[in-house]
Amino acid sequence: MSKNESIKSMEYGQNVVSFLMIKESDLKKAKNDSLYLDMILGDAYGNQANAKLWNADGTMASYKTGDLVLVDALVQKFNGRLQLRINRLRLVEEGDDVNIEDFVDSAPENPENMYAYMMEILADYENEELRMLTEYMLEEKKDRLFYYPAAKTHHHAIKAGLLYHTFSMLKLAVELAKLYPFIDRDLLFSGVILHDLSKVDEMVSNELGIVEDYSKEGKLLGHIIQGIVEIDKAAASLGISSECRLLLEHLLLSHHYHAEYGSPKKPLLPEGELLHYIDMIDARMFTMEKVLRDVEPGSFAERNMTLEYRSMYKPDWQA
Amino acid sequence: MSKNESIKSMEYGQNVVSFLMIKESDLKKAKNDSLYLDMILGDAYGNQANAKLWNADGTMASYKTGDLVLVDALVQKFNGRLQLRINRLRLVEEGDDVNIEDFVDSAPENPENMYAYMMEILADYENEELRMLTEYMLEEKKDRLFYYPAAKTHHHAIKAGLLYHTFSMLKLAVELAKLYPFIDRDLLFSGVILHDLSKVDEMVSNELGIVEDYSKEGKLLGHIIQGIVEIDKAAASLGISSECRLLLEHLLLSHHYHAEYGSPKKPLLPEGELLHYIDMIDARMFTMEKVLRDVEPGSFAERNMTLEYRSMYKPDWQA
Amino acid sequence: MSKNESIKSMEYGQNVVSFLMIKESDLKKAKNDSLYLDMILGDAYGNQANAKLWNADGTMASYKTGDLVLVDALVQKFNGRLQLRINRLRLVEEGDDVNIEDFVDSAPENPENMYAYMMEILADYENEELRMLTEYMLEEKKDRLFYYPAAKTHHHAIKAGLLYHTFSMLKLAVELAKLYPFIDRDLLFSGVILHDLSKVDEMVSNELGIVEDYSKEGKLLGHIIQGIVEIDKAAASLGISSECRLLLEHLLLSHHYHAEYGSPKKPLLPEGELLHYIDMIDARMFTMEKVLRDVEPGSFAERNMTLEYRSMYKPDWQA
Amino acid sequence: MSKNESIKSMEYGQNVVSFLMIKESDLKKAKNDSLYLDMILGDAYGNQANAKLWNADGTMASYKTGDLVLVDALVQKFNGRLQLRINRLRLVEEGDDVNIEDFVDSAPENPENMYAYMMEILADYENEELRMLTEYMLEEKKDRLFYYPAAKTHHHAIKAGLLYHTFSMLKLAVELAKLYPFIDRDLLFSGVILHDLSKVDEMVSNELGIVEDYSKEGKLLGHIIQGIVEIDKAAASLGISSECRLLLEHLLLSHHYHAEYGSPKKPLLPEGELLHYIDMIDARMFTMEKVLRDVEPGSFAERNMTLEYRSMYKPDWQA
Amino acid sequence: MSKNESIKSMEYGQNVVSFLMIKESDLKKAKNDSLYLDMILGDAYGNQANAKLWNADGTMASYKTGDLVLVDALVQKFNGRLQLRINRLRLVEEGDDVNIEDFVDSAPENPENMYAYMMEILADYENEELRMLTEYMLEEKKDRLFYYPAAKTHHHAIKAGLLYHTFSMLKLAVELAKLYPFIDRDLLFSGVILHDLSKVDEMVSNELGIVEDYSKEGKLLGHIIQGIVEIDKAAASLGISSECRLLLEHLLLSHHYHAEYGSPKKPLLPEGELLHYIDMIDARMFTMEKVLRDVEPGSFAERNMTLEYRSMYKPDWQA
Amino acid sequence: MSKNESIKSMEYGQNVVSFLMIKESDLKKAKNDSLYLDMILGDAYGNQANAKLWNADGTMASYKTGDLVLVDALVQKFNGRLQLRINRLRLVEEGDDVNIEDFVDSAPENPENMYAYMMEILADYENEELRMLTEYMLEEKKDRLFYYPAAKTHHHAIKAGLLYHTFSMLKLAVELAKLYPFIDRDLLFSGVILHDLSKVDEMVSNELGIVEDYSKEGKLLGHIIQGIVEIDKAAASLGISSECRLLLEHLLLSHHYHAEYGSPKKPLLPEGELLHYIDMIDARMFTMEKVLRDVEPGSFAERNMTLEYRSMYKPDWQA
Repeated sequence: MSKNESIKSMEYGQNVVSFLMIKESDLKKAKNDSLYLDMILGDAYGNQANAKLWNADGTMASYKTGDLVLVDALVQKFNGRLQLRINRLRLVEEGDDVNIEDFVDSAPENPENMYAYMMEILADYENEELRMLTEYMLEEKKDRLFYYPAAKTHHHAIKAGLLYHTFSMLKLAVELAKLYPFIDRDLLFSGVILHDLSKVDEMVSNELGIVEDYSKEGKLLGHIIQGIVEIDKAAASLGISSECRLLLEHLLLSHHYHAEYGSPKKPLLPEGELLHYIDMIDARMFTMEKVLRDVEPGSFAERNMTLEYRSMYKPDWQA
Repeated sequence: MSKNESIKSMEYGQNVVSFLMIKESDLKKAKNDSLYLDMILGDAYGNQANAKLWNADGTMASYKTGDLVLVDALVQKFNGRLQLRINRLRLVEEGDDVNIEDFVDSAPENPENMYAYMMEILADYENEELRMLTEYMLEEKKDRLFYYPAAKTHHHAIKAGLLYHTFSMLKLAVELAKLYPFIDRDLLFSGVILHDLSKVDEMVSNELGIVEDYSKEGKLLGHIIQGIVEIDKAAASLGISSECRLLLEHLLLSHHYHAEYGSPKKPLLPEGELLHYIDMIDARMFTMEKVLRDVEPGSFAERNMTLEYRSMYKPDWQA
Repeated sequence: MSKNESIKSMEYGQNVVSFLMIKESDLKKAKNDSLYLDMILGDAYGNQANAKLWNADGTMASYKTGDLVLVDALVQKFNGRLQLRINRLRLVEEGDDVNIEDFVDSAPENPENMYAYMMEILADYENEELRMLTEYMLEEKKDRLFYYPAAKTHHHAIKAGLLYHTFSMLKLAVELAKLYPFIDRDLLFSGVILHDLSKVDEMVSNELGIVEDYSKEGKLLGHIIQGIVEIDKAAASLGISSECRLLLEHLLLSHHYHAEYGSPKKPLLPEGELLHYIDMIDARMFTMEKVLRDVEPGSFAERNMTLEYRSMYKPDWQA
Repeated sequence: MSKNESIKSMEYGQNVVSFLMIKESDLKKAKNDSLYLDMILGDAYGNQANAKLWNADGTMASYKTGDLVLVDALVQKFNGRLQLRINRLRLVEEGDDVNIEDFVDSAPENPENMYAYMMEILADYENEELRMLTEYMLEEKKDRLFYYPAAKTHHHAIKAGLLYHTFSMLKLAVELAKLYPFIDRDLLFSGVILHDLSKVDEMVSNELGIVEDYSKEGKLLGHIIQGIVEIDKAAASLGISSECRLLLEHLLLSHHYHAEYGSPKKPLLPEGELLHYIDMIDARMFTMEKVLRDVEPGSFAERNMTLEYRSMYKPDWQA
Repeated sequence: MSKNESIKSMEYGQNVVSFLMIKESDLKKAKNDSLYLDMILGDAYGNQANAKLWNADGTMASYKTGDLVLVDALVQKFNGRLQLRINRLRLVEEGDDVNIEDFVDSAPENPENMYAYMMEILADYENEELRMLTEYMLEEKKDRLFYYPAAKTHHHAIKAGLLYHTFSMLKLAVELAKLYPFIDRDLLFSGVILHDLSKVDEMVSNELGIVEDYSKEGKLLGHIIQGIVEIDKAAASLGISSECRLLLEHLLLSHHYHAEYGSPKKPLLPEGELLHYIDMIDARMFTMEKVLRDVEPGSFAERNMTLEYRSMYKPDWQA
Repeated sequence: MSKNESIKSMEYGQNVVSFLMIKESDLKKAKNDSLYLDMILGDAYGNQANAKLWNADGTMASYKTGDLVLVDALVQKFNGRLQLRINRLRLVEEGDDVNIEDFVDSAPENPENMYAYMMEILADYENEELRMLTEYMLEEKKDRLFYYPAAKTHHHAIKAGLLYHTFSMLKLAVELAKLYPFIDRDLLFSGVILHDLSKVDEMVSNELGIVEDYSKEGKLLGHIIQGIVEIDKAAASLGISSECRLLLEHLLLSHHYHAEYGSPKKPLLPEGELLHYIDMIDARMFTMEKVLRDVEPGSFAERNMTLEYRSMYKPDWQA
């Protein structure tokens, strides 16, 4: 039996030994004062299952989100859903024939390619100042862009999700600039590329794209303000004109559109208006595709907080 | 001197005789009890000026929005803006060498071409029911689509503005369906084509695309509800499946997104989410292009009600 | 001992064998991995108690809301409330001397009589079109009106609750039409009769008046829109004038008054204004009577979600 | 020619001499520095017209709302509406054959009768404390009830409007108490009778029921708080039980229902819930009947501020 | 070993016998049907710990908040926090060498001194009426002021917390009256002293300053309305001028500023504006000091409901 | 007769020749096509009056806000208010015996003294970094602080109003830091000093403290964001620690408290909470003192937009 089994292929009553990634782990106390581990485990194919290890001890509090473990468990069912009763588990060790990357939700595009696409777009700019400034800021964050997610739990909470979100938005921006030719292409593209870049400073993520918390600066200022300060610094060191710097800062400041979502000014540039809608569309399409993925045709998905608690529907002809 | 002069070429102190269209006209009473006409006149080039005819009489109340008139006036200035002091005016007559169409703000695309584009899109559908239903409803309103505006005073308040708005949205929808391939193209396109179609029943417009008022049914139900009822009727007479009918009705119902703007349900289909954003983008881009058209680079436009009273900015490099 | 005992008469420590209806049932897992049933059971007198069956097995997941069961249980108390510890239970069988209807919360009026009252009111109309249309629509839903509740969990969630709500509102409407004689009686009465009628299509109820879920169409359109479409169809098939159809559709559309509660238009008819208030009054009086029923004089009832989390008070003189 | 002519019978070009009441009067300055009076005048039949007196002098600032004047004027028309150009006017004098009461909008019921009706209702109470307290408070305000309006400009802004509003609400309360028998009749009736009684202290009205301003106490406390304090005082001097006093104070406090309309507590008594809705219904019906009175069948009334800027509709069959 | 040990000094594995106060106590049922006590216990030094007594019996439901008990327990740890496993406990008895006052959170100032400070301030008034009325009302509530908290769970929920809150506000008011000399000192001070005084009637507190519930009058009217009625009564019995009474009542009515927080009128006196801000500042400073007390420098406190769910930060230099 | 007369001493019918400052000036067109100047003029004693110059010519459009003029006018009255009918006017000239400073509303404290007070406070800091950074930023804006107002039309719209507002707040902050000793004094004081400093970049003011407009950067970013960027720059050039810089930036970001007033984050420092309330108190006290200044005791002031349209009251004993 392979040690890299799909949860979907596990059968009731079977004993399995397989590598799985810890998505969530809690050491809890049962009413009889004994401890147990309550976990969500994920396989290398995007599936997850609840798992319990009864009669745990305090040392097991060290298992945490993102750990890859070898699990020996009995497959049970509860409320129609598969559940694992763990006999033993241990952390992955050197020599184990397994690749942790397989267990991580990642962007469906290769980061190198996405980054290269942005660079091509930049190479095509007419506005030299916008190109310089945008490229400069991208380079500074490049390393982290290759694995940072776009959010802790909202949309694009996957490895390189921030880069993927930016990349998808940019493709849409390219089309919009064609459809509305009065739009300043370079300004719009730079707005897209820079709009969330400071999320790499707002959140603390490991290299698997899993965010543990917001940073201190993230809590006290937030990525919009952090980004504006970064643009200001970069513009100063590159000698960028005040008009160019100011407009980019305004694009960042206004891109959430609503004051209660963090934008004290509404967009005063059409490029800012588009930036806001492109951002919304890409975030919503990502989440809607995800919640509808496993839904039966003619049925409703579960309510989703990011979608304002809506329960999306899949037409019956999408069999 | 031509009788079809541009207002921009008129000079202070000059006497002009030219055809102009009445955009607004009010018969007012001066403090000394005498009457005067207070008008906004437009030329064939998209420019407008205030005009006054002093010592008017009651019969002049018959001049109204949309009338083409031959004006004999003295060019004056007030508060830095050109103003016409009318000596005489009369309605256009047979034999006058002038084309009323030139004085009407119209969609920048030919209605025949826009309609043909929609037909091509429809011809390409895979979903036969959606095609039939959408085509059927379009045909029914075709005549009015060739001149109805999209609104009384908001965005696309121009001749064939409703058709132009739909056409522009459709082009954007085509691109979005490519970028998000899980989207049901035909469903999205039908949503776009039908979303505002019942505005031709909600408002009463003349053939120049000028709306005098909302219809009784428009005031009591509104174009969203009117549209849903129309889909229901059309589906019944064509024998369309209930799933297809229901989803289109839901797209109409939810396309304003917010309850306070007329949508009692939020979109439960990703196609509905896109429909809402496409609608917003096209409406906003139309208005923003218009308010920025004559603004000096480096300056702010006048506040605009449709843009939530924002005063848009034009970058100084867009000289 | 009778097998149809009132929960109020059960005593601590006693063993009881009685028919009870399952109001809620959940198969849960105890910390020691064993299963137990956690239920709310109701007697034939409107009382309810919590019940537990320890060491259940998976087959017991089949017990569900609305099932009538014969229960053998020990009466316990916890937190001052009676609780049943079930030893055995089985579904009611043929030959059991028990009537399931006794265990269902039902409208306090006989459906036949309530329906007959509406017919009398209709017989009295002066407006023939309103009478025809209203009667036609009532007849179509008549069967379901005899058992549908007015809501899943809100007010009038009882068997024939929708009919009872309509009946009570109609009696109030009759009085209001006398007090405000400028009101169009027939229009108001038809608004009352039709306002919630499409709830029989919005929800899926069994014949005991217990709603399991909203229908697909209910989720995507809602009873207001469904009702408007139904009126439109009925009016077309009966040849009703457009004025009459339009005003009824407007009454439905506006009867929730607030956009955020589903009415995109506010009432533009005084009859619509009254319809809204009659609806509110009857829903609130029903719920307030219920929450205050068992409250001690001089005390406050429990907070109630339907009453915006208010805790109602009963005067101390109402002993 | 009668000196008590209906404005509706005046004809264009005619010279009229008639008694009219000043509804509004402003002394304004024309651009040429001369003064003129700009007035709204009302006849004895409920009609109003704009009137102007050119070349006025400063002494004319003394004409004010509620003055009855003899007007000599030329009938003109402007924007399709009749307008009076006043040649001369003077205040009514002793010996003039005219009754000022005819020019005042008054409640359609005789105050004596309305008051007597309330007394009958009170005589019928079972709760002696409620009867005593309510009667006591009514007696104290009786004089002013005979002419006070219910508001400065909102609903029931007519002579004895406050009494009429209370009287109408009481008739509705009587019916509601029958339809919902768990309601405490006496408590509800006292709530109705007392709910707005302190408006006679909140506003300053002349004996024609015309309010010039709010009182100082009205501005700093408002009629709800003023009423509560009055109940407290009355209860103390009559030795009323604390329960009875408290519940009445709560009814007053909560009867506007919404905090933003002046009720810091929502009703915690079903009688308070009814009181709120009875108040709304009667206020709205009064205003709706008024705005629809002169509307053509099949047409919309003018937008009305009190009705949240709605434009009500009159069915075409109400010819 | 002392029987008055600090929870902080207790060590894992140790057996302790100590007096502790019950802050919360719940008799719960374990899944195996046995009962256990789940408690929060507090020592005489302001520290608290969770405690459990397994295999409790029904009589133990009599232990309640505020009871001082002698506890014999084993010190355990769970999730890094100390937890007590109780072997035995009993209520404090006569002869026990312990002072219950030590276990109660109390204002950091002596009530006598705080009361005396207010009296000094009053002695200094220029406005004799304000002095008389304020003193009169203070005297009436004096007894309860010595132990009532300012709230059930919000700010200043400690013994004599209401007095302490008033005292702190008064000191701030003294400074503000110096900085803004146009302010009427006496009016401001009386507003401060009286603003929350009726909380002693709105809530029911024991002499340890622990609130069990709101009073009936508190739920139906609230301390603002109760206070206004009290001022009115006091003014009547002292013969205070209507201006003085009215302004104090207005200060009470408006001091929450926002309608949704209970003030139907906004302040129309600058003294009322200050009163509102002084109240906010003192409440917020009290809570912020408390939540930050044990936070590590450079870290964030736990989210706090009273602070609108903010998580406050302590600068890293405050070591 | 003095040429520096108080408007209050001017009498009806009199001819005056006096220096007055133009507060507002509009060249308007009368109905008869002639031009006139419509102005608000102010004397050296803080009084203002409306003035009209009939039969003006186009050159007079050059008179503008802030010009000091010698006016020859006839004193008239209209609606009980004094009005000047100007015969002639000219700009002040060299040699005129008049001081323009007398005509400008200025802070009641000398700017040098206020600045010196801030320097003393700074000299007293314990936190050296905060001192350096704050002093550095103050010095940079010092020149403009000596004349900039705090707002265009809101509170402290007077010469050196920004400095005066900061100075008053600082005095209050000093007292608060004493009353709440856990507060970090230096942090609070720096927050006060810096909170609005970037208003000198947000608005464009002349040296009389009259703001003509917001700057481009002010419209696109606003003083909060501008201030944060400035702190960031200053901290970089002075080598300030990141903790110190971050906390000051957070204080600026959060000081408007509400998102809809421009603060995307609420204060997470108690010093930020105080800063917000100090700001509110000082702004409100300034405006309330002003609107009440000329109000009769026992009367209400005019409604004031800055005070949320409240009409403040002056007690009758403040004679």
